[in-house]
Order: sequence, then structure tokens, then C-alpha cells
Amino acid sequence: MNSKTVNEATHLNNLAQEQLNFVLIHGAWADVSFWDETAASLRQAGHTVHVPEYAGHGPKIDPEVTHDDIIQSVVNYFTEQNLQHIVLVGHSFGGTIIAKVAEFVHDRISRLVFFDAFVPKDGESLVDQMPEPVQQIFHGLSTASGNNTITLPFPLFRETFANRATAQQARAIYDVSPTEPAGPLFQKLDLKKFYSLEIPKSYLFLTEDIAFPPAPFAWHPAQSSNLGMYRLIVSDGDHVSTVHTHPDIIAEKLVEAGRD
Amino acid sequence: MNSKTVNEATHLNNLAQEQLNFVLIHGAWADVSFWDETAASLRQAGHTVHVPEYAGHGPKIDPEVTHDDIIQSVVNYFTEQNLQHIVLVGHSFGGTIIAKVAEFVHDRISRLVFFDAFVPKDGESLVDQMPEPVQQIFHGLSTASGNNTITLPFPLFRETFANRATAQQARAIYDVSPTEPAGPLFQKLDLKKFYSLEIPKSYLFLTEDIAFPPAPFAWHPAQSSNLGMYRLIVSDGDHVSTVHTHPDIIAEKLVEAGRD
Amino acid sequence: MNSKTVNEATHLNNLAQEQLNFVLIHGAWADVSFWDETAASLRQAGHTVHVPEYAGHGPKIDPEVTHDDIIQSVVNYFTEQNLQHIVLVGHSFGGTIIAKVAEFVHDRISRLVFFDAFVPKDGESLVDQMPEPVQQIFHGLSTASGNNTITLPFPLFRETFANRATAQQARAIYDVSPTEPAGPLFQKLDLKKFYSLEIPKSYLFLTEDIAFPPAPFAWHPAQSSNLGMYRLIVSDGDHVSTVHTHPDIIAEKLVEAGRD
Repeated sequence: MNSKTVNEATHLNNLAQEQLNFVLIHGAWADVSFWDETAASLRQAGHTVHVPEYAGHGPKIDPEVTHDDIIQSVVNYFTEQNLQHIVLVGHSFGGTIIAKVAEFVHDRISRLVFFDAFVPKDGESLVDQMPEPVQQIFHGLSTASGNNTITLPFPLFRETFANRATAQQARAIYDVSPTEPAGPLFQKLDLKKFYSLEIPKSYLFLTEDIAFPPAPFAWHPAQSSNLGMYRLIVSDGDHVSTVHTHPDIIAEKLVEAGRD
Repeated sequence: MNSKTVNEATHLNNLAQEQLNFVLIHGAWADVSFWDETAASLRQAGHTVHVPEYAGHGPKIDPEVTHDDIIQSVVNYFTEQNLQHIVLVGHSFGGTIIAKVAEFVHDRISRLVFFDAFVPKDGESLVDQMPEPVQQIFHGLSTASGNNTITLPFPLFRETFANRATAQQARAIYDVSPTEPAGPLFQKLDLKKFYSLEIPKSYLFLTEDIAFPPAPFAWHPAQSSNLGMYRLIVSDGDHVSTVHTHPDIIAEKLVEAGRD
Repeated sequence: MNSKTVNEATHLNNLAQEQLNFVLIHGAWADVSFWDETAASLRQAGHTVHVPEYAGHGPKIDPEVTHDDIIQSVVNYFTEQNLQHIVLVGHSFGGTIIAKVAEFVHDRISRLVFFDAFVPKDGESLVDQMPEPVQQIFHGLSTASGNNTITLPFPLFRETFANRATAQQARAIYDVSPTEPAGPLFQKLDLKKFYSLEIPKSYLFLTEDIAFPPAPFAWHPAQSSNLGMYRLIVSDGDHVSTVHTHPDIIAEKLVEAGRD
């Protein structure tokens, strides 16, 4: 028992904020522009931000890209840039990316932040996290595409990915959303090493994010609880529009999730 | 893949708000005055608001009113007023009303908004949504009334319908709450057509609303998930006092829920 | 049916706030300094606040203290101070204390407020509320201590008790956290009389409090629903840092939870 009280021991609100080094990994049906406003807000607050595009995504979608290709491209970015002390953030599908990337460059990472992101169990794919009827829909959409990609219908996107947005905002975001290569979403992932790492982990959950059923528990606690011990940060917001409409709040929550 | 980014495609926060046409349907133990402050706030923001009283309710309660009578009275209002492009909002018991009304006048409705409302499965009643012990309490209260109505005891109302209110606010709201005809609450509803409609649907959930057990999941996701695809909007607040104490917030959330 | 509307019956926001008399009971790994900032905020708002230390805790930890000793010490405080009309608040482990204290001095208590607190079923202990693997960890920690106490590892404390804090805030709070006598946490409690009391009860839940698994439902609704009818109040915040960093919000929520 220490004889000091909390009040005697510290001036809780007079402490300098640590400066963080972020790497931000977007999800499916998106590219690096997903992070434009959030990255600007983080930089404004004094943090360093990297937003690498990953394999098969960006201006030219590659329907044949594999999950391994994606991991390799991000790992290469870490080593080429010689990144250190990184807060690695993955949104949605990006959760499967940061979990695997951590297996290769964990010594360069101070913390993983899963932002309404998938945390598959060892041996499972992103699609395996969904209820059986939704899995069937994903299979149907990818088969119907003729080139192994998946495009979300606008009504589904507007109601469940951009529910907090106006109709115009939702349409604007949808209009620049690329189609998604289906292969990596179905890739079963060997995550044994990830689950053996002692790296600190956080989960950022937005309470109106019902992008994947069964809502609202697909993200938290259904996916978050796969992490074991983790730091929970909660805000309001939806799956894709809030990063564009309220980037300062998202940036603040990423700092709360990412700091030591 | 579109080559524009979200930022290039739109000025997300510079868009004019669409003007909406609301019809607001109150729940049990209430009358149209439930919506007084919220309707005023919506009108102040430029929206059109209709607040029709429905059969058996209002200044003179009719203990013999049926669920069919209620539906007919609202359907008549739609046709007599020749309403078009309506955002039809139902609170609590009102959820069973808007679902059935939509079967008859779906071409006049742009969206249904269930506001902490019941969404019975086809063939079920409002009371069927509750756990067995609560069903027994409802049966007991209606039998004890001698005229097939249900009156809520004040302690139950204060703690679970008006938990965010002061004691005086809760008492004031309770003192003007009418007794409720029991019949429509026990009426099993044929909702096959409702569940076949492709009409857009939203669910507005207030996080401190534990009006019906098992809390807090009676409303969301237990009732909301019956809707299939729907837009989720969340705020804080309780079942009946928040519309009176924070109408501007409720109005804002109804717009988020009701817009295209 | 009363012919007045709510608006006619009351000026909802012009009512004087009642003055309350609080007794605040801290949880495990804490002492009365847990309440320093919250008590100051409540007093500033005109309320009376008592913060008694309980047996075996405070400057000198007694590893041999029993749950009965703790109850007796709080009951003695009530009678020696001749307390009346008390809002009795218990945080975390403090929930087991206020439930038992109410059995002895219920006529002196106007309401019990469980603040992210345990509400054991009759015949169960605090530790019985946890999943089996966590129970094993508690057994292991107390055995390893050599003196029947439990000390939380810093990483667990930082991530799950102080997740909203900065690293410095979390460290400062941890550094003054005493070790906890294990006996009372494992004590199975006879709560038959508590569950027969008709005393009003409230539950204050902070949405980012994942101090005990399975998160986030250990507190609400898993523990809260043991209360039967209760008033729910919700805010954001974590298990131990928010009382220090945002005491005005906690004080406001304790008033909402504690008033008539």
C-alpha cells in the first residue's frame, strides 16, 4: 500500500501527450483515400502517419491478388521504410491484414489497433466470421461477378455501411468505392503465431456500425473478444461515413486506442 | 474503380438537408401529446409533421378497440389527407401499427422508422415478444382491471419508462398517461405482406431504454433484427421522458433515421 | 385519462434539484481516495457525501479481514453517525458490500446504486460471477501471494481497468492501488434478505468498462439483471480512471441514479 493518494501522486490532466507513429490499413471496397481526413487530423495533432496502399488495391484493382500478396506488400513497406515503434491500425478487412503482418514485423510494432475489424480465429477466413446465409450471399456475388470480385449493392451499402450519412454523402462515398477482389476474403488464415504474440492490442468500436450481421455484435464483442486481453475504446459512428464526416473524433479515438 | 477520391467527389458537409414529411404514431399509455415537443422541433427545422390520433385512444379511451380498428383509422387518415412520400414513425406499440399500416398504403410511404418499437414476427402479438413471466404480469393486470385495460404501476413506470427523468418529470408524465386497452397488445398479427414489402426501414434505439425485459436487448437487437436489412441510428435516452426533455435530439435522430 | 397534456401539467426543466445524502463505498484495489474528485463534485452541487473506509482497507491492509468484518464496519458507521435517507453507492466489489449492508440498515437507505458493481446471486461469491478460467487465475494469484492477497499485474490493470486513461494516468492510479485481501472476494454470500427487500435500486453502467470478462456484458446486463426491477443510467467511461479524469460527469450520473 502506497501512502499517497491518486491526487497527491499525479496531476492527471497536466501531462504531455505522447507522439505516435501510425500505419493505417484500409478495409475492403476502399483505397488509401479512406484515411485522407483522419490522417490529416492525426498529423495536425503532431503524430506521424503512413498510409501505404496494399497489393491488388488502389487505382488498378487486381482480381487475382492473394491475401499473401497483400501481407507481403505491407511487410515490404515496413522494412523498406525501416519503420519502428508503429501503431498499426486495421479497419474492417484490414484486421486480417494487421494480424498477419504482425507475425512478420512484430518487433517494429508497439500496438495493434483493430478498428471495427475482423479478428479471425486461427484457420478461419473473413467470410467464416459471418452467419451461413451471409456467406452464401458472398459466394453468390463473387460467382455472379464473372471475375471473382464482389461489388456491394447501393441500398445495402447506404443502410449498413453509411447509416449515419446523408443520402448525398453515402452516394458520394459509394461512387468512389472500388470493387473488391474476392479471394482474400475467403482465404483461410494460419494465425497461430499471431495468437502467440504478446503484442499489446486495442479494439475501437463505433456503436452504430452494423456493417456485418448479426448486428450489433459482429464487431464487439464477437470479433473483439477473439483478442483475449485488449483495450476497448468506444465512440458513436458507422462503418465508413464517420471517418469522412467526423475525422477529428476518429483521430482522437485512434490516439486513445494507440497510445502506450 | 473510380479514379476520384471521396474528397474530390464531394463536399460532404456542404449539402442541403432534404425536407421530410413525417407521420408520428405514439405507443401505449400515451396520446398525441407524446409528440408535442418533437413535432415542434421537426417543424422548426422545416419538415412537415402529421400527428394523427388513432382509434380507441385520445381524450376518450375505448377499452373495446381492436388492432384492426387502429389500423383502419390510420389508413383512413393517409387516404383522406392524400399523404405522399411519408416517413412513418412508430414508437413502442406503434411499431405494430406502422408495420400493418404499411401493408395497405406502402405506395404512400418512403420509409418506416421503428423508434424503440415492437417488430413482431408474423403471427405473433406484442405481448408474445416478452418473456413468459412478463406475459403473465400483463395477463394479470388486464384481468384485474375489470374492463380489459392495463395501467402501469408508478414505480415500474418511473424506473423503466422514465429512468432519465427527475422524480417530478416522471410523475408529471405519468399523471397524464392514460390507461391502455389490452386487446390490441394481445392481438396476433398477420404480417406476411409486411415482411414481403421492399420498403426501406430504420430502427432508432435509445441506449437507456429498458422499458421491456430482458433489458437492454428487447429493442435492439432483439426487435430490430426482425427487420432484416435496416438502418440503425443510436442515441442515449429512455423510453418516454427523453422526447419531452430533449426533443431537439430526438428530432435530429428521426431525421437521420427518416431521410433517403 | 387525464385531460391535460404533459406540457400543460409541468414545466419540465424548471424544477429544483433535490439534495441527496450519499454514502460511497469503493471497490477492490482501492481506498477512500477513489472517491476524492467525485465527492468534491457532488458537494459542490449541494449534496452531502460520506466516504467511510471499511474494515481491512485503508492505510493498513489486513489480509485476514472477512466479508462479515467489512459489513459490520459499514453498518457501525451508519448507526454511529445516525445516517438517514441515504443513497448508498457501491463500486465494483462494493456491490457485494451495499447489498449486505442493506439487509441490516434498509430503513436508513432510500436507494442502492450499483456502479459497475457485482450483484451476486444468493449463495454466490464475487468470484463465482466470473468465467471458470478467470476464477482459476484469481485462485492462482491469491495462492502465489503467500498471504492470501491479490495484486493485479500492471498490463491487465492498464488495458482493462484504465483503458480510457493515458499511460501516465494509468500508472499513477496503479501506483497508489493497494493489494486486495482475497478472502472477501471468495466469500459466498447469503443474500436472501437482500433479494426480499423492496428498496429502490439503480445500476450505473459505463460503456467502456470491461474490467471483468466476458466483456462487455459482465456488468450490464449480466450483473444488473440480477436486480430485477432497477433504474438504468449509462455513460461512457472505464472502470477506474474515469472517476479521476471526469468526476463531474460521474457525479451527475450518480445524481441521476440516486434521486427519487
